[in-house]
Amino acid sequence: METLNGLKRTHYCGDLREANIGAEVVLMGWVQRKRNLGGLIFADVRDRQGIAQIVFDTEVSKEAFEKAEKLGSEYVVAVTGKVFERQSKNPNMPTGDIEVFAQELRILNEAATPPIYIKDDDDVSENLRLKYRYLDLRKASMQKNFILRHKVGSIVRNYLSENGFLEIETPMLTKPTPEGARDYLVPSRVNQGKFYALPQSPQLFKQLLMVAGMDRYFQIVKCFRDEDLRADRQPEFTQIDCEMSFVEIDDIIGIMEEMMKKIFKDALNVEIQTPFVRIPYKMAMEKYGSDKPDLRFGFELVDISEEVKDCDFKVFTGAVQSGGSVRGINIKANADSFTRKGITKLEDFAKTYGAKGLAWMKYTTEGITSPISKFLSEETLNAITEKMDAKEGDLLLFVADNNKVVFDSLGHLRVEVAKQLEILDKNEYKLAWVTEFPLFEYDEEEDRYVAVHHPFTAPMDEDLEMLETDPVSVRAKAYDIVLNGFELGGGSLRIYNEELQKKMFKSLGFSEEEAYEKFGFLLDAFKYGTPPHGGIAFGFDRLIMLLAGEDNIRQVIAFPKTQNATCPLTEAPSFAEEKQLEELGIKVVDEEK
Amino acid sequence: METLNGLKRTHYCGDLREANIGAEVVLMGWVQRKRNLGGLIFADVRDRQGIAQIVFDTEVSKEAFEKAEKLGSEYVVAVTGKVFERQSKNPNMPTGDIEVFAQELRILNEAATPPIYIKDDDDVSENLRLKYRYLDLRKASMQKNFILRHKVGSIVRNYLSENGFLEIETPMLTKPTPEGARDYLVPSRVNQGKFYALPQSPQLFKQLLMVAGMDRYFQIVKCFRDEDLRADRQPEFTQIDCEMSFVEIDDIIGIMEEMMKKIFKDALNVEIQTPFVRIPYKMAMEKYGSDKPDLRFGFELVDISEEVKDCDFKVFTGAVQSGGSVRGINIKANADSFTRKGITKLEDFAKTYGAKGLAWMKYTTEGITSPISKFLSEETLNAITEKMDAKEGDLLLFVADNNKVVFDSLGHLRVEVAKQLEILDKNEYKLAWVTEFPLFEYDEEEDRYVAVHHPFTAPMDEDLEMLETDPVSVRAKAYDIVLNGFELGGGSLRIYNEELQKKMFKSLGFSEEEAYEKFGFLLDAFKYGTPPHGGIAFGFDRLIMLLAGEDNIRQVIAFPKTQNATCPLTEAPSFAEEKQLEELGIKVVDEEK
Repeated sequence: METLNGLKRTHYCGDLREANIGAEVVLMGWVQRKRNLGGLIFADVRDRQGIAQIVFDTEVSKEAFEKAEKLGSEYVVAVTGKVFERQSKNPNMPTGDIEVFAQELRILNEAATPPIYIKDDDDVSENLRLKYRYLDLRKASMQKNFILRHKVGSIVRNYLSENGFLEIETPMLTKPTPEGARDYLVPSRVNQGKFYALPQSPQLFKQLLMVAGMDRYFQIVKCFRDEDLRADRQPEFTQIDCEMSFVEIDDIIGIMEEMMKKIFKDALNVEIQTPFVRIPYKMAMEKYGSDKPDLRFGFELVDISEEVKDCDFKVFTGAVQSGGSVRGINIKANADSFTRKGITKLEDFAKTYGAKGLAWMKYTTEGITSPISKFLSEETLNAITEKMDAKEGDLLLFVADNNKVVFDSLGHLRVEVAKQLEILDKNEYKLAWVTEFPLFEYDEEEDRYVAVHHPFTAPMDEDLEMLETDPVSVRAKAYDIVLNGFELGGGSLRIYNEELQKKMFKSLGFSEEEAYEKFGFLLDAFKYGTPPHGGIAFGFDRLIMLLAGEDNIRQVIAFPKTQNATCPLTEAPSFAEEKQLEELGIKVVDEEK
Repeated sequence: METLNGLKRTHYCGDLREANIGAEVVLMGWVQRKRNLGGLIFADVRDRQGIAQIVFDTEVSKEAFEKAEKLGSEYVVAVTGKVFERQSKNPNMPTGDIEVFAQELRILNEAATPPIYIKDDDDVSENLRLKYRYLDLRKASMQKNFILRHKVGSIVRNYLSENGFLEIETPMLTKPTPEGARDYLVPSRVNQGKFYALPQSPQLFKQLLMVAGMDRYFQIVKCFRDEDLRADRQPEFTQIDCEMSFVEIDDIIGIMEEMMKKIFKDALNVEIQTPFVRIPYKMAMEKYGSDKPDLRFGFELVDISEEVKDCDFKVFTGAVQSGGSVRGINIKANADSFTRKGITKLEDFAKTYGAKGLAWMKYTTEGITSPISKFLSEETLNAITEKMDAKEGDLLLFVADNNKVVFDSLGHLRVEVAKQLEILDKNEYKLAWVTEFPLFEYDEEEDRYVAVHHPFTAPMDEDLEMLETDPVSVRAKAYDIVLNGFELGGGSLRIYNEELQKKMFKSLGFSEEEAYEKFGFLLDAFKYGTPPHGGIAFGFDRLIMLLAGEDNIRQVIAFPKTQNATCPLTEAPSFAEEKQLEELGIKVVDEEK
């Protein structure tokens, strides 16, 4: 192995272009592949920016050529040479117009045969990829993702900084989050028997920073939730967390829209239009069956309860009579895209969201074809087709049930149909705000109301009176930002009045003592001059995933955990030493017990 | 209480200047104080940027005046008004040239009498300040510290970004650090009986990112150490963490010097000179008795062992004979600054660092005055004064002991003397690199060598041969950056060769199995093409503390912990619920046991 000994890189391999022809360069990187051809040796050398073709020619340097014969895949090299126009250009490579004739080669390190290939289309198990993450990250696609992640982080930080936000760090070792998900606990050694919690978000601290007069706060910060993992969840995740004083909803939305605009422009060179559409929660559910609607396509939900409430089809009338509804979506001009078998598959899909069945109609040249048409009078059929704006060639799909099931199944179904029809364009970005969320929802398990966002969210002024009489009808000063069917983030104006906050806790079923025990320091803080304030938090990992066009959040996290919260690379978590547990004053309970 | 209802702030209070005279402004902030004078009400309104004087005049608005009568300290207000030139200007206030005549006043929130005053010189206990941190942070000095902290973070991020560094997040829930300080552990629920550790630094991950070809990495990142706290230590602290591939020491030092230069210029408008002086560890100890020398003043250590080795003063000769040394510092032109009593106090100080006594000489007009001169021949005295470059008016202080005690006591003594003489200028910044650290030190407790930096630090090439024969003499490719007696950061070139890394582990007393168990995945990674790499980490909190001219790290951390690792505000850590411990499969051991 040789050393650098003062040798300095002049260019990244991947940055070389025609303009560099004639230049003497020093490149450093990894051997992607090597081949002998016509007495020459060609080696593709790779670094973070891309690949350059190096030519070893005995007539340029016999010594370099002889060393090059020893090169294997993933050897680490330093090459000194001159850039030439390439004989046979490769238009598929950014550096395809040039090649570098090597004057000197240093082998800085050797490499054993890697257990996974360093190429994007390598089809190995994700577990193996995570075990050898340091090799997996060498892939061009992964390097691109992390360059993008860095870039978006920079854009966000600079934008917020220019707009008067201060990045202020909040504690990682803190107090359990009341009313949140499950916390990660950290046993204290100095205060034996007590525990810190890792933060689920800096919510309380950022509100305290507003009480502290910091005016505008942000942080790109790790948060933690000990929940069972789904595809796009990680035990630790990153938030862009913001809070502002002396603002109302429009101020926050305005600043955040400009931020999104800047991210899309500077990171992807995509122009997005502001202001984004704002959809009240109720409308989002009624039109899209979802509070995070994908707006890239239609197939909106239509309520036909009124039209069918007196028909002979018991499934429909039963749903309406028991307080539910019958709703449909019109898959415009796609009657022929789905066979009966295809529709049965859609029905199976809808059933996974609780639907008992899926009624359908095809509007053919012969009129309506449908297994349920026999239950419906011509008048009813006409009313339905009119309400659904059905034309020849359309496919109509219906679900009748309670509203929750209708929304959930049709909401997912419209996306599923769009996927099957391949009409979703990854490069189209439809951003929207969903507003006027309900403040409370009823928690069956706990048998009480819980906060939809969190207990510090302010109710809408016009609904204040219902706080005690009709909590579920109270809407919140809350807003989510939605992109292509994903929730990118959400926030709210906060309660900044001690009395209102106490009333809120009461609605959540806390006695004054309980409220004080859980949130005492916040209630205390509210006494001493709290400004009106509000904020928002974005899921940074998910944002990057969508910007990178990835389907999996682990593609944009350098060292993610698996679904069972382990790291195949480091084998974390692991057993602790007895001595350490003793110092902490804790014991592992025997599993067999 | 009134609401904003569309009202928008036009200016920060503290930003108003003469140029704003005549402008209609909307200000929002807190009432610092209020007074009635000549039929007018004057209120100082404060926001993040400073204070503006608001005048309430019945002739401008009777309604505003009447509301203003109700204002109390720390009330939250919105004021609409017009900027006028002030009648009696206040040159001590940045906004002292203007005042705002209020047309409208809205009281956005009231405030109870705060338990601490919102002014910088308020002399309350730190515990009370931390309990009401949201009030403490309202102080101008604290706001200034966090604005500075944000600014330096921005400068660092943008500088590193422009120099090709990618900010890549590394895991918080990870594996225990072998060979480190005590870890914070996080019990795993999904993998009961196992624990994550919070990172002491992202060391292994940043090296893996270099193996992954990310080329240049950085992160401003929280790290954790469960150690007993000293004044400038916190359980969680923030590092500027960097790593680079294909570099040598000069490359890293060069990039970091420019970064420091930029920080001082852009944050403090202070020009610092590059390159910084580089002092090998051995020289630092011999000249300053410290590996983090304060270079703002002289009083350098001088070895007089040779001069006194044959004298009649047993304390001196004994130290030399047993392998130690006799060294002194010359407190130039300050013989009169210290009385005998003052010198006795210095001796007491030296004793806290292990010195058995402090010998001294004053060079007066009558020659040398010293309790030990009777033991020294004139020849010896002359040799000493010559070696010490002593002139009339100088005070010489000596310690004789083993080198560790001599360095430690004289090193601290020279700083203590400088403090007492008040020659330390907070606005003078002396930056230096200390290099060529020893690779190992002997750990009495563990009875083996341990790594001074960490086990991945590369030995100097010229010392490689001593790795097995004479480990303590091996110097490392390590460097610390030092500012005015504080270690700001440190780093090293890393071992990137599997064989050398194995040899290193062997020197640390690990069997091959142990080494593999502790560092297996790093050793594995080294097989597959590891580039030469190295890095550095800066203590961000300490850097900000020094830039802010603060003496205490808690002044630059928004929500710090006390010395016993608790938070007086949130009362973290706290007891966990039994259910949660059950889910984690752990138990608190009864304290009484």
